[in-house]
Amino acid sequence: MSESKNRRSARRSTADAPPAPTSPRSSKKAKTNGSSTSSRNLSFVLEKPGAVTFEDRPVPTLKSPHDVIVNVQYTGICGSDVHYWVHGRIGNFVVENPMVLGHESAGVVTEVGENVKSLKVGDRVAMEPGVPCRRCVRCREGKYNLCFDMQFAATPPFDGTLARYYSLPEDFCYKLPEGMSLEEGALIEPTAVAVHICKQAGIKPGDKVVVFGAGPVGLLCCAVAKAFGATKIVTVDINEERLQFALKYAASSAFRSQKESAEDSAKRLIKDCDLGVGADVIIDASGAEPCIQTSIHALRTGGTYVQGGMGKPDIEFPIVAMCVKELNLKGSFRYGSGDYALAVDLVGSGRLSVKELITGQVKFEDAEKAFEDVKAGKGIKILIEGPKE
Amino acid sequence: MSESKNRRSARRSTADAPPAPTSPRSSKKAKTNGSSTSSRNLSFVLEKPGAVTFEDRPVPTLKSPHDVIVNVQYTGICGSDVHYWVHGRIGNFVVENPMVLGHESAGVVTEVGENVKSLKVGDRVAMEPGVPCRRCVRCREGKYNLCFDMQFAATPPFDGTLARYYSLPEDFCYKLPEGMSLEEGALIEPTAVAVHICKQAGIKPGDKVVVFGAGPVGLLCCAVAKAFGATKIVTVDINEERLQFALKYAASSAFRSQKESAEDSAKRLIKDCDLGVGADVIIDASGAEPCIQTSIHALRTGGTYVQGGMGKPDIEFPIVAMCVKELNLKGSFRYGSGDYALAVDLVGSGRLSVKELITGQVKFEDAEKAFEDVKAGKGIKILIEGPKE
Amino acid sequence: MSESKNRRSARRSTADAPPAPTSPRSSKKAKTNGSSTSSRNLSFVLEKPGAVTFEDRPVPTLKSPHDVIVNVQYTGICGSDVHYWVHGRIGNFVVENPMVLGHESAGVVTEVGENVKSLKVGDRVAMEPGVPCRRCVRCREGKYNLCFDMQFAATPPFDGTLARYYSLPEDFCYKLPEGMSLEEGALIEPTAVAVHICKQAGIKPGDKVVVFGAGPVGLLCCAVAKAFGATKIVTVDINEERLQFALKYAASSAFRSQKESAEDSAKRLIKDCDLGVGADVIIDASGAEPCIQTSIHALRTGGTYVQGGMGKPDIEFPIVAMCVKELNLKGSFRYGSGDYALAVDLVGSGRLSVKELITGQVKFEDAEKAFEDVKAGKGIKILIEGPKE
Amino acid sequence: MSESKNRRSARRSTADAPPAPTSPRSSKKAKTNGSSTSSRNLSFVLEKPGAVTFEDRPVPTLKSPHDVIVNVQYTGICGSDVHYWVHGRIGNFVVENPMVLGHESAGVVTEVGENVKSLKVGDRVAMEPGVPCRRCVRCREGKYNLCFDMQFAATPPFDGTLARYYSLPEDFCYKLPEGMSLEEGALIEPTAVAVHICKQAGIKPGDKVVVFGAGPVGLLCCAVAKAFGATKIVTVDINEERLQFALKYAASSAFRSQKESAEDSAKRLIKDCDLGVGADVIIDASGAEPCIQTSIHALRTGGTYVQGGMGKPDIEFPIVAMCVKELNLKGSFRYGSGDYALAVDLVGSGRLSVKELITGQVKFEDAEKAFEDVKAGKGIKILIEGPKE
Repeated sequence: MSESKNRRSARRSTADAPPAPTSPRSSKKAKTNGSSTSSRNLSFVLEKPGAVTFEDRPVPTLKSPHDVIVNVQYTGICGSDVHYWVHGRIGNFVVENPMVLGHESAGVVTEVGENVKSLKVGDRVAMEPGVPCRRCVRCREGKYNLCFDMQFAATPPFDGTLARYYSLPEDFCYKLPEGMSLEEGALIEPTAVAVHICKQAGIKPGDKVVVFGAGPVGLLCCAVAKAFGATKIVTVDINEERLQFALKYAASSAFRSQKESAEDSAKRLIKDCDLGVGADVIIDASGAEPCIQTSIHALRTGGTYVQGGMGKPDIEFPIVAMCVKELNLKGSFRYGSGDYALAVDLVGSGRLSVKELITGQVKFEDAEKAFEDVKAGKGIKILIEGPKE
Repeated sequence: MSESKNRRSARRSTADAPPAPTSPRSSKKAKTNGSSTSSRNLSFVLEKPGAVTFEDRPVPTLKSPHDVIVNVQYTGICGSDVHYWVHGRIGNFVVENPMVLGHESAGVVTEVGENVKSLKVGDRVAMEPGVPCRRCVRCREGKYNLCFDMQFAATPPFDGTLARYYSLPEDFCYKLPEGMSLEEGALIEPTAVAVHICKQAGIKPGDKVVVFGAGPVGLLCCAVAKAFGATKIVTVDINEERLQFALKYAASSAFRSQKESAEDSAKRLIKDCDLGVGADVIIDASGAEPCIQTSIHALRTGGTYVQGGMGKPDIEFPIVAMCVKELNLKGSFRYGSGDYALAVDLVGSGRLSVKELITGQVKFEDAEKAFEDVKAGKGIKILIEGPKE
Repeated sequence: MSESKNRRSARRSTADAPPAPTSPRSSKKAKTNGSSTSSRNLSFVLEKPGAVTFEDRPVPTLKSPHDVIVNVQYTGICGSDVHYWVHGRIGNFVVENPMVLGHESAGVVTEVGENVKSLKVGDRVAMEPGVPCRRCVRCREGKYNLCFDMQFAATPPFDGTLARYYSLPEDFCYKLPEGMSLEEGALIEPTAVAVHICKQAGIKPGDKVVVFGAGPVGLLCCAVAKAFGATKIVTVDINEERLQFALKYAASSAFRSQKESAEDSAKRLIKDCDLGVGADVIIDASGAEPCIQTSIHALRTGGTYVQGGMGKPDIEFPIVAMCVKELNLKGSFRYGSGDYALAVDLVGSGRLSVKELITGQVKFEDAEKAFEDVKAGKGIKILIEGPKE
Repeated sequence: MSESKNRRSARRSTADAPPAPTSPRSSKKAKTNGSSTSSRNLSFVLEKPGAVTFEDRPVPTLKSPHDVIVNVQYTGICGSDVHYWVHGRIGNFVVENPMVLGHESAGVVTEVGENVKSLKVGDRVAMEPGVPCRRCVRCREGKYNLCFDMQFAATPPFDGTLARYYSLPEDFCYKLPEGMSLEEGALIEPTAVAVHICKQAGIKPGDKVVVFGAGPVGLLCCAVAKAFGATKIVTVDINEERLQFALKYAASSAFRSQKESAEDSAKRLIKDCDLGVGADVIIDASGAEPCIQTSIHALRTGGTYVQGGMGKPDIEFPIVAMCVKELNLKGSFRYGSGDYALAVDLVGSGRLSVKELITGQVKFEDAEKAFEDVKAGKGIKILIEGPKE
């Protein structure tokens, strides 16, 4: 259900985080080249659980000569957005002050800092929504998604991207190649989630891969696994319609979950999908306890399991099977070095298509409706347009 | 409790396994050089749960020109041996016919096949007790401990090493360096288990390592972690005496488990042992549910956990913590490529000492007493001498 | 020039290698199921440099219950075959006794040993021509292509596959999937060479790859790099016709080598092919000194270079550039664990096509003509049919 | 001779680099706690090749709230320092304006920026002299030593550490543990060079390692290899006295180079030092052509070679031997993520000793004498004290 909730829950409180920028814009040194940055910045704000509003927030400024300002055009909604909207919290992350929602966005550059070299005003970009400190031991070793001081859009206390303008460092904006639309650009975020999961899984040409869950991230994991050269890709879900979509989209076989023991389910999966000694890689994009248990039993000895989805914090787990089969288990959290760039490359080159996942689009003023639809499980991915003024 | 049970439970039935060799010895081509191979082969046999006996079994023969015959001198006993003795089974491995026990052995070569080049009669060797098929996909990729057709000593239906003679391929016998005793040679088996666990853990210089369980394998994991360059090695147990031994032996800090929540235990561990943002590596050599849960909470983001011990097949597991901390979890099963050789090298060079772990020794005729002592938790490692005639 | 010479030169003398089998066939236990194994075994034999002949050699027998006999149907010829034909040696490997040539083959199983499970008489298979000892430290660690006692077809003193029958262990025969022809099966050998090179190179989705040399192995490296997800694949050669073929076949850009300094060539390559800060991966399938030098200068910092081709044993090499750019250089020798299986998978699934590389086919009696054509540089890959009787 | 020259030659011109700070000190927000930062900043400046002088440069200021100011206490001199002093350039790095020399330093913190958390005034620190941009693709993937915009002390146009004060970001200063002297702190730089080389080499417990060159970096590579668990460490040099020192210091065997072919030298090395099938790892810390050639021939198949030293830019190289033995070659450039921290840990814990490498110490006013001694090859490591006022 809440498959990608984890992509947004940071890991420690940042009480000393910078306040929302309210200072007048220091555009003196910025290269604006006739920038059209407006003085209004309509934003979609979560005030408290279930209560949203529209506010005209201060237009963000360039805090660093490496930053750019982006006029947000499209924003996708995922399970974690809905979770904050409904519950006002995910784990220890509690919305204590009004917070702008949204983190899956693409837009157009309206202003660039004086040190910016790779972007110019007017460039269309996918926006990576989490900016790390660049100084902690995790950042310095190349795992910035595990940064101790991450500032992630729409994870409290940081405002999100459902606004007219959003400020990001140059290197967290990825220029869209010609022929790639801004709508596709908004889908780069969940694609990067899937890229990171598949990298964690170490998927390589020839692998037999099983993906539990056929929601947006599960579907994208199938597509990325295919782009990574997997020979067999099995989609697993309880919903027949989703399975049929997954088959048309990227999977090579489908398996429908039933009420049965994890061992029985694993045996049936291996037999029905011709997995021989078991799957090389299994990805869970469901967070569901029976899926996780079945996965462990359906892997070959020495196989790899990646936890991508999130559900109950604690589950019954077949630890001895994991031990004697010498499995590799990995968590996957958000995305890191190279993931966004690869996602843009895969979509831009046509090796991975995201268009068919966009099943709805609403105007900025109707943003709440998008949340309602995701909550109701309607469609696959709904986009919210940026505010027109 | 049964920390090393898993090292012996193979993964699939081998109904078509070769019968115990009963043919007359084909010594025609073997290089015996005045070999003293006797015609008697006294063996310690498990007839059914709880019922052992001594039998004069046929002396093994050279089935291949690459094989050698070893006169077994010392054999250690571990939890899995005791488990077979008491229950007659481990998981799906059921003792259906009388089976010779024992698998942690060292001895003297008494006969070598005609293609054997690295060994000669009289050589003292540590005996690696599991011989893989060398042909399956796991063997060919270098993970022979995951072989589909492993023949492992004292795992049904294969006889063990508690006998006067045992046959092995040349490359599964490791010559003991000068100055290393046969008693130490018998300890190479659990040392190789610890080497494999520490390799699975990817322990590297500078790591902060925690080892749950201070039994033989846990202690050896501390010592191997030290040899691998770990900066801090925390031993964890509920038994104060064991903790004190571990501190003297190889650990740099000790932590005593208490009845408390896993989160609280993890916090206390991190604070008391000065682990900063959490441990880099945690090894479980206990198999106990609370230890496993505490481990997940005590690891740093991106840290590594290895399951070495075995207890309940299914446990309550903090899967979301594993996911958002992007942990790496691995099972560890027996030992594989290079593990025995490295264990011999570490002990032979004095970088790792096993002598202090030998807390008892009995004659072959008193073998059952060794099993009783291990069952009662007496001492650390008890050796059984080989039969004198 | 002699791009794949290295795939066949073993590394140490095997004076004690088994003699050519001449004993009567021990078919008693073999499962032949109406096998059509004939009593004739016409073979194409190199007697001395430049002198070949046809001989009726003894039909091979099952030396092990794991072996099968294959009726060879198609055999490709490569530069190393021609090198033996012309010079009678490659490096320290000297043809001292008449030797059957050929090692790129596919055929039909005519007899199986009693332990063979995955194959039956009549199965069509690609034949992996090098059988390792399975016992040395390299074999046990999963790098059997580096085996100390490799027995490789048509590398002295071992006979090759240009014969009616050839014996191999079951696990070195790869069943061809439905729809894949035996002609394609013969191309699996050079495909496996390219797979191994690309694995050594660690090619991953998104990489920018340059391949020097557009002969059979170079072309196949382009195709495998594409299947591995490389975003940009530059083919480099001095021959415009080959470049055009490579572009149609698998490359995304082409670069023509000229007489200029290595630094200038590298600059031109980077500029013309839009390689930004340099290539992520460069593969040399040419063995030519200027190509190797250019490669080092055209790689990005931290990039990877794989030496696949062989030419002069010693060359002028830019070692300081390699050092300060912290490059990774690797040799690639033949193929190892999983390479043949992946090559069959790629071709069988249609992700990689080899048909267009087959530019000629001759009858067994005309085998020498195939050698002459390869020597003359005619076409890309020429196949020799197996003897019809 | 110039073994560590490469640690300082950056890779691209930084014409737009920040000028030496001359603005008045903005100490308003800095936490100085009674800091004793003086208003004088005596510096040792290279004006042009061979011409040095002492200048009172402006005291550096905190350019970022993450920075600290260090009062430099000890600075070691290496071959690259001398190379700049004599030639005014290394490769494309040309000293065009007067530049402060020195980069191997330790000192005491005198001022900390407002965001600094881990350091306080008075802390004794080892100073990592190269600060990367933290934003380029190499930085973000965790290889900051390959940063496109590195600012490295005493690599033109950046001033070095032979001054009274030097400014660094907090995370490039490593607090010295109790019991570790500031003199030892200055040796952390070459130790980090050796740590990086040994990491590049992937040295693991049990490896047989050969190190060519017994200068400071070669000696430290022996010591780090030992700390990483290498079983055998062979030091190679032409100087008997150095070999004897290396044996006492960290090597387990010594080999004296002679005038002979590379193949003969490799055979003699393997035989005399009992390397069996060849060395697992060879490190070159000499930069000498015959050493590099011998290394390739002395490695086992699949072995690893790391180029740590620098000499002639192009050498005669046995490329075919590298190819058929499937060797791994790597450059090593400066140090990266975790290297400085591990060096401090190794020295601080006593697992690696650097005291015996300090063979001389001069006052700041006598700095040029240290350069003369290093040029003349006197001693191993000479330290220059910081200016007293």
